[in-house]
Amino acid sequence: MNYCPHCGAPVTSKIPEADDRPRFVCEACAAIHYQNPKMVVGTIPETGGSILLCRRAIEPARDKWTLPAGYLENGETLQEGAARETLEEAGYQVSDLVPYAIANIASINQVYIMFRCSLADSAGAPGSESLEIKLFQPPEIPWQELAFRSIREVLKLYCQDREEGKFPFHMIDIL
Amino acid sequence: MNYCPHCGAPVTSKIPEADDRPRFVCEACAAIHYQNPKMVVGTIPETGGSILLCRRAIEPARDKWTLPAGYLENGETLQEGAARETLEEAGYQVSDLVPYAIANIASINQVYIMFRCSLADSAGAPGSESLEIKLFQPPEIPWQELAFRSIREVLKLYCQDREEGKFPFHMIDIL
Repeated sequence: MNYCPHCGAPVTSKIPEADDRPRFVCEACAAIHYQNPKMVVGTIPETGGSILLCRRAIEPARDKWTLPAGYLENGETLQEGAARETLEEAGYQVSDLVPYAIANIASINQVYIMFRCSLADSAGAPGSESLEIKLFQPPEIPWQELAFRSIREVLKLYCQDREEGKFPFHMIDIL
Repeated sequence: MNYCPHCGAPVTSKIPEADDRPRFVCEACAAIHYQNPKMVVGTIPETGGSILLCRRAIEPARDKWTLPAGYLENGETLQEGAARETLEEAGYQVSDLVPYAIANIASINQVYIMFRCSLADSAGAPGSESLEIKLFQPPEIPWQELAFRSIREVLKLYCQDREEGKFPFHMIDIL
């Protein structure tokens, strides 16, 4: 941030009074511009024992496989955002969303919030951010071709829990 | 947002190509400025059967009681943020943080993530954002004097769960 989004004057990075960390502060209008982590919401869609993955059409990690996920938008609940991302990236309606895992990725100011869910019966289709969508039985999951470590860790937990038939809520850190 | 934080030129609100909702876009440098919900992290600190509340020294809801909570900062995990807020607002170190509840407040673009936790033995002290801190046995909780509906709903669930001796993870919507 170089300029104040409110008034257009240059901002400087300094610690405001009664604060303890640097913020972008406008010298002209005195506005303080806070920057905070973002939420990534997504699903682990399962149907008939198979898990839906999408092959990414865009960078980062183009060509790699991932669970449907993306940034939460203003005005959405977490479940609405996770369902929207699944529809956008895989063309599938989902239902019965249950919170499954939160992954802190503090190094890049992201928090992933992932939901278990069921897929509607109708077939999906890759959206503009996906090259391909495919249902994988757990032994077929392309572990070496997954897009992000957060996705790999959540999928790993899910496959373990699936074998035990119990899905406790998980909270993990991706370093 | 009126001006581009990157280059200082005016921004306009429009739907970028391959997007489906209006964003602030810079006509000069073409930067797209996304706006996303924020996370509020906090704790439900319990010690000896009592729950810690803070009386707010600042608006909104000055003079009302609340659980320690505030915006997650860049570089923090959810647990680190919740512990920091508790230390800042109540002067208490906390331990054994366990995720307890998520509250969507889509109307104001916030998601609350609240943790159960234990208080360290040493006494706390109100921070600059608190007028007073106090431990309440559940029947003493000032339900009519709580600051926010999200806090009231989470506390209500917590007190119910406490009676049953089980603390399942909750996901709620605040309309």
